[in-house]
Amino acid sequence: RSSLSHSLLSPAAERLRYILNEDDDMPTPTLFTEMDTLQREGGELEWKESARWVKFEEKVEEGGERWSKPHVSTLSLHSLFELRTCLQTGTVLLDLEGYSLPQIIDDIIERQIEEGMISPELRDKISFVLLRKHRHQTKKPIHRSLADIGKSTSSSSECPAIGNDYSRSMNDIADSPSSDQLRNKFMKKIPRDAEASNVLVGEVDFLSKPFVAFVRLAQATTLGGLTEVPVPTRFLFILLGPHGKAKSYNEIGRAIATLMVDDLFSDVAYKARDREDLIAGIDEFLDEVIVLPPGEWDPKIRIEPPKKVPTADKRFEKDEEMPPQHELGEELAFTGRFCGGLYLDIKRKLPWVPSDIYEGFHLQSISAVLFIYLGCITNAITFGGLLGDATDNYQGVMESFLGTALAGSVFCLFSGQPLIILSSTGPILIFEKLLFEFSKSNGIDYMELRLWIGMHSCLQCFILVATDASFIIKYMTRFTEEGFSSLISFIFISDAIKKMVGSFKYYPINTDFKPDYVTTYKCECLAPDLSEFTPWLRSWRFKGSEISAFPRMNDWCLDWSQLSKKECLKYGGSLVGNTCKFVPDLALISFILFFGTYSMTVSLKKFKSSRYFPTKLRKLISDFSIFMSIMTFVGLDMLLGLKTPKLIVPTEFKPTRPGRGWLVMPFGKNPWWVYVASSVPALLVTILIFMDQQISAVIVNRKENKLKKGCGYHLDLFWVGVLMAVCSFLGLPWYVAATVISIAHIDSLKMESESSAPGEQPQFLGVREQRMTGILVFALTGVSIFLAPVLKYIPMPVLYGVFLYMGVASLSGIQFWDRIKLYMMPSKHQPDFPYLRHVPLRKVHLFTLVQIACLAVLWTLKSTFLAIIFPVMILGLMVVRKMLDMVFSQHDLAWIDDLLPGKDKKKKKDDDKKKGKEKKKPKLDDSEEEVRNSSFCCPPQ
Amino acid sequence: RSSLSHSLLSPAAERLRYILNEDDDMPTPTLFTEMDTLQREGGELEWKESARWVKFEEKVEEGGERWSKPHVSTLSLHSLFELRTCLQTGTVLLDLEGYSLPQIIDDIIERQIEEGMISPELRDKISFVLLRKHRHQTKKPIHRSLADIGKSTSSSSECPAIGNDYSRSMNDIADSPSSDQLRNKFMKKIPRDAEASNVLVGEVDFLSKPFVAFVRLAQATTLGGLTEVPVPTRFLFILLGPHGKAKSYNEIGRAIATLMVDDLFSDVAYKARDREDLIAGIDEFLDEVIVLPPGEWDPKIRIEPPKKVPTADKRFEKDEEMPPQHELGEELAFTGRFCGGLYLDIKRKLPWVPSDIYEGFHLQSISAVLFIYLGCITNAITFGGLLGDATDNYQGVMESFLGTALAGSVFCLFSGQPLIILSSTGPILIFEKLLFEFSKSNGIDYMELRLWIGMHSCLQCFILVATDASFIIKYMTRFTEEGFSSLISFIFISDAIKKMVGSFKYYPINTDFKPDYVTTYKCECLAPDLSEFTPWLRSWRFKGSEISAFPRMNDWCLDWSQLSKKECLKYGGSLVGNTCKFVPDLALISFILFFGTYSMTVSLKKFKSSRYFPTKLRKLISDFSIFMSIMTFVGLDMLLGLKTPKLIVPTEFKPTRPGRGWLVMPFGKNPWWVYVASSVPALLVTILIFMDQQISAVIVNRKENKLKKGCGYHLDLFWVGVLMAVCSFLGLPWYVAATVISIAHIDSLKMESESSAPGEQPQFLGVREQRMTGILVFALTGVSIFLAPVLKYIPMPVLYGVFLYMGVASLSGIQFWDRIKLYMMPSKHQPDFPYLRHVPLRKVHLFTLVQIACLAVLWTLKSTFLAIIFPVMILGLMVVRKMLDMVFSQHDLAWIDDLLPGKDKKKKKDDDKKKGKEKKKPKLDDSEEEVRNSSFCCPPQ
Repeated sequence: RSSLSHSLLSPAAERLRYILNEDDDMPTPTLFTEMDTLQREGGELEWKESARWVKFEEKVEEGGERWSKPHVSTLSLHSLFELRTCLQTGTVLLDLEGYSLPQIIDDIIERQIEEGMISPELRDKISFVLLRKHRHQTKKPIHRSLADIGKSTSSSSECPAIGNDYSRSMNDIADSPSSDQLRNKFMKKIPRDAEASNVLVGEVDFLSKPFVAFVRLAQATTLGGLTEVPVPTRFLFILLGPHGKAKSYNEIGRAIATLMVDDLFSDVAYKARDREDLIAGIDEFLDEVIVLPPGEWDPKIRIEPPKKVPTADKRFEKDEEMPPQHELGEELAFTGRFCGGLYLDIKRKLPWVPSDIYEGFHLQSISAVLFIYLGCITNAITFGGLLGDATDNYQGVMESFLGTALAGSVFCLFSGQPLIILSSTGPILIFEKLLFEFSKSNGIDYMELRLWIGMHSCLQCFILVATDASFIIKYMTRFTEEGFSSLISFIFISDAIKKMVGSFKYYPINTDFKPDYVTTYKCECLAPDLSEFTPWLRSWRFKGSEISAFPRMNDWCLDWSQLSKKECLKYGGSLVGNTCKFVPDLALISFILFFGTYSMTVSLKKFKSSRYFPTKLRKLISDFSIFMSIMTFVGLDMLLGLKTPKLIVPTEFKPTRPGRGWLVMPFGKNPWWVYVASSVPALLVTILIFMDQQISAVIVNRKENKLKKGCGYHLDLFWVGVLMAVCSFLGLPWYVAATVISIAHIDSLKMESESSAPGEQPQFLGVREQRMTGILVFALTGVSIFLAPVLKYIPMPVLYGVFLYMGVASLSGIQFWDRIKLYMMPSKHQPDFPYLRHVPLRKVHLFTLVQIACLAVLWTLKSTFLAIIFPVMILGLMVVRKMLDMVFSQHDLAWIDDLLPGKDKKKKKDDDKKKGKEKKKPKLDDSEEEVRNSSFCCPPQ
Repeated sequence: RSSLSHSLLSPAAERLRYILNEDDDMPTPTLFTEMDTLQREGGELEWKESARWVKFEEKVEEGGERWSKPHVSTLSLHSLFELRTCLQTGTVLLDLEGYSLPQIIDDIIERQIEEGMISPELRDKISFVLLRKHRHQTKKPIHRSLADIGKSTSSSSECPAIGNDYSRSMNDIADSPSSDQLRNKFMKKIPRDAEASNVLVGEVDFLSKPFVAFVRLAQATTLGGLTEVPVPTRFLFILLGPHGKAKSYNEIGRAIATLMVDDLFSDVAYKARDREDLIAGIDEFLDEVIVLPPGEWDPKIRIEPPKKVPTADKRFEKDEEMPPQHELGEELAFTGRFCGGLYLDIKRKLPWVPSDIYEGFHLQSISAVLFIYLGCITNAITFGGLLGDATDNYQGVMESFLGTALAGSVFCLFSGQPLIILSSTGPILIFEKLLFEFSKSNGIDYMELRLWIGMHSCLQCFILVATDASFIIKYMTRFTEEGFSSLISFIFISDAIKKMVGSFKYYPINTDFKPDYVTTYKCECLAPDLSEFTPWLRSWRFKGSEISAFPRMNDWCLDWSQLSKKECLKYGGSLVGNTCKFVPDLALISFILFFGTYSMTVSLKKFKSSRYFPTKLRKLISDFSIFMSIMTFVGLDMLLGLKTPKLIVPTEFKPTRPGRGWLVMPFGKNPWWVYVASSVPALLVTILIFMDQQISAVIVNRKENKLKKGCGYHLDLFWVGVLMAVCSFLGLPWYVAATVISIAHIDSLKMESESSAPGEQPQFLGVREQRMTGILVFALTGVSIFLAPVLKYIPMPVLYGVFLYMGVASLSGIQFWDRIKLYMMPSKHQPDFPYLRHVPLRKVHLFTLVQIACLAVLWTLKSTFLAIIFPVMILGLMVVRKMLDMVFSQHDLAWIDDLLPGKDKKKKKDDDKKKGKEKKKPKLDDSEEEVRNSSFCCPPQ
């Protein structure tokens, strides 16, 4: 075989496989690499730290006193080859017994003299150079370094002079780590078990050819001030050479340092038996390197570390053919046993109960609680108000608060997925409205009828739970999920905007106002015609309970001008004037508060990825962004003192409608057949609740959220059923999972890894799954009655702004939304989404179009009375998705959507067939073998 | 020499130097490379385009029908070595006479048979495969491709079936380019002189070892449908091999394609004399590649093309030691001759006059004119108003308009730097104010005194011009420039905000307004005590000129309630009521208009770098962002119909003060000594004008703006002097260069290159230097009097928003501002500014701190009466800068600031000395030589 590369690489891989498989059970420690270069400072030689590697390279900038940002080490191929030569020709000492630097250096020099590589008279000189003091790049606080400026400028050189403690003895290296080393904050970026590898390169004038040594110590040893941090040294690479090639030496040093932090090579270095193993390690590394053509890249650009790097064993897998499959796990398996699913749910969740409590104690929980609490009470007030209107105050704001607190806290305490937040939802509201109208017109008692419906529905839920009916949720793919959650988000957004627009109607602006004609603007209360009025007045005078009105009524003729608008209308006066129907300023300030809250929240959220301030502060700002925005605009509102509409919570604990009590009795008001017949509307309610609850649960349990504690669809439904019955008895609204608030809850509890190695991107780890935040939110909701003095300062427009933010935030991160944006992007600007690499754009567009059409239909239906069967329409979405199987290939659907159960196996079979036709995808070892031996280009010559 | 790499590389460089230097005068054409792979579609073989390169790689995505984004080709080292082997063992035909693909293929096969590499019976099979039809990736319009979906799904395979025109003849290749080829829009991305190189790779079942050929044609020839675009083919690389290694072949194909578009290798390919030259080209390429360690980078990531790539000859220069030096050029050289500078200015600018006219005709000019026009009239109105107040209407809005139009258009027509926009500035305003007060209290005629000061000042300007005094501007470095322009920007921003805050004072909000008590709010005009009033009324009745007031005055008792606020106060009435001092809505709507205009402009400007819409549309939106924002908020204002303060321009052509005419006479009103003494204040004005004018000119002429037509400091000053005198005679305000508006002018005229090769970043080319925009702006200003009916719809807060934007925009891109931001960034998040790599952070911070301190002092002075000598204080800044030479090293200053004249040479000397101590930096050829021969690691064994 003539091929240059193959003749080298094949045996290399062979060798490595042998040594690496030897004892695979012992993981090798992480390596921290420091590179020091020899510098002449004020006539004295010293070793100065010039770069370091935990995973990525950090360089000391030319100006000194500053670490560069961590970046990918771009090497030149040349230096790697030179390094290879160095290791071939230099001294390699493996498992040297070393306890101090002087001894180790002596051993190296001894060996070189033995092998005739250097002459004995160089011993002292080399030893002297190698034992010079090491100066590390440590971060100085800015005030100290500013104080240094005077010093450094007086000496007028770029680097401060070396202190007087510099002694000319043979050995500058202290034996124990210095206090600087111990104090170094960088230590926390290095894993605990880490060992150091030190790279020393420099040019000296007494050598005519390079002095190279690679040393592995038998035991990792702290070699005094050799390393910046008190980490024991395991490897030592020394390169001293004649003058004039400092840049080359530097590049070789960077090459070995980069190799030492490579997962595979560091393994090789730990396990190498001889020089040849190391060379094989380099060859293996070379075979895997990624090469950038010199004409397409500027080597001066420092490449930012990527979001994710492949692990050592995955480097060989080149291109995934299929996306990772959507797995719903055992939670939704059909057990076939009575209450089998419920039993499994309880069994699964029970062990997590303690951690569900203690994991709640975290700073992040506070911001989450505040955020969700505000969302919940806004929701409770909105729905309470609407329900009050719809049911003639049988259920009002008071019931809404109480019900939210009760249902929410019970659910968070006992449910399978405590991250779900219960709330009143639109479909339930419409149902109540229709039901109330029906009862009223047919002379049936509303509360009693409602109680029976609730009981039936609860029973039906229990049947669904007992029969594991939730397993059909498996057929809900991304298509259905995203369709539903987008729709709910749109409703949130449109509601927020509607409310805002409403305030322009509620506080009309007098657009004709001319400041100069301020004298002509008035609104007067005119007394009605007295002759008509007197009899009414008399009758009123004795019935009326408001004493304060009497004195005014007495001096009749003066009074009218003093009455307020409401009073005037109440007493039958008429308002005359050109300002009567206008309210100045309030609409505009409402808009400013609304839009300001929204956009400040968005900007503060984004602040996390800005460059300003330390990471922790930024994270804090981002976590508390909603709270800070609310505070800011509440403050602005208080400062201006305008009478904007404020949040009003009930302050007394009593039912909204005076006539009703806290308990609804099941019998007595309606004929007996109503008790039976109510099971029919109950069926509608059950379907409605089942769909609404389970789809929200699917969205919360999405794989992207990386939940670890499992979910409990059956258990959730069980408690929703129980709460149905309880709320019906107490005459409170019914509750079900609220998609948008639940997503907001999860978003506010997301965890990211602290970045470990400098430059490594923080990874999304999962969500703080616990029950405390939910419980606290609902406890707070319950005691909101006592918080009224504080809450009354919050203007409603601010809360609408929060609503808008919730709606918009829950849209982001939805693939459907990303795909809609693709319509507006020329294909060359489109982001590199995985599915775009695999599915033709027009198919992606078609898929999105189908989704948009479905949503448009749903939106239209939602606006009619059909809204009541709205969650049932999700079934319609699932049918549409099923039909898409006929239009799109399974390959495309696997990328854009998920496969339906059953299709999965079919697809696999197809794939197998395909592969059979081509060639089976080789596994790791085979593929290596194959690549190595691919000598197809070199026929024997 | 044992070293693997060196034994290979050294002779390679030798070889290349020989062939590349042979005839260096003939540049080789650009190469477009297309890679086609052999595919089996519906049982038929065909060549399918899989990637292409103009400079960067574009890949056909797996899903087909889509080009990837252009990206840097990341190769594996392995494939490069395999390619090398291929070229060593395959057929290499250089300068083949080829006119058609079949003939070329015949020639290749013939050669292989001759050399015994393949057996003759394979001839037909290979030829058949190589002559299959080529299917190119062409962009289909989306409506066509959507129509295709039906088709493709019915056949249910991933790719549409091949049409019926597929014939089974030996030769599928047409001779002439197809209409698809000719219509291909991609053609415009390829340089005109380009030639194609075609790479064909594929696996076939009849070969047992690879069939490799590299062909260079003697003449570039269009080979039918081989290439996507009608570009003649020069190179052909063919790799056919046995089954099972498609991925390897693909990688080799990518490697040769990447090599072909490399500047250096394509040269080698054009000039190679034999196979060894090509191999040497690969070795050379290998020596320069940049290597990414496999553990630090994920090869799946597509690397975006860098902003800039080094040119082939610059690849060797590794690290610049000093920043490029600030060159002021010959414009500011001290000639020593009378009017020498002026003469040179005219000589320099005269040849550009025609292009100054025709280069103005461009779409971008329209947006620039609109933007600057609005800025100018807002400025004219603001300063006009202030001047009117300060001088008792001797100079008012009318004079301001007229003066702006006159001075501006004359300057734009004749000046050395027509990009500069003249305007009234703050210091002049203060001077006028003090002068008016002085004249008034001393009984001196203001207009005549002002005329004499203007004439003296004009004369003094002429003296400065004649003596080339502007050369001292050379001592103005970035420190001074940026300090001055930041200060002016701050003034702009603070003025805009002050005006905005002012509207809250002007239109106070009634924060106590309770909507329910609307009946109690009124403001009435009460008649004064009649007995006092009658005598005054009588006297007024005969003097008064407003007839319309009479009928009201007649029926006395009814009238008062009908009077407007102004009338009421005019007739001595008193305003009584709780709404008299409040104006609803106007303050808040003003804020919304102000902030909305500003933030919409900012967002639209940013839109240029968004992913949405095609590049051209985005550029249009960004160019017209200010216009669009103004239109939007003018529209909103009109929609609401509120009486916001509007832009009011004079509609009649007459001096603001009734008493004065259009010409000021020089003699008659003041004693004779005033004519002489006025030369003293004139001196102050001259210094003021000189500094203000020239520093703005320096900022406009900054190197970063890449101006090509040179500047004319002396010529500019000459015209400013002339205009001084003219304006003094006409009693118009004095004008001088306005920094912020001039910067805005330049920003709105910036040109970027159309990106040529896909993926190449557009480069900033320079500014549309012409006189048309300026002239148009001032012509429009002049005719604004006739535009009043349109302009009166523009609310002032919208214009203040534009002001705010101008101020903020002129701050961005200032290094000083970037450095201030550094204070708030932890060093690891700081951007990779070149100076941060070379200067210690604490020195950068100290430098910034000095600048901040200087600005704080200037800002404080500006707020006192010392504002009059404000531009003179720039001299103070220059002195501070001079003193910084003592605190900072010249090395640091060269990076953060510029060197002062004279220091430049000193620094160079220092550098030379340093270099002498170290080693001289080798030039290109030496360094190559040196690197190649660096066998320091391999002692002879």
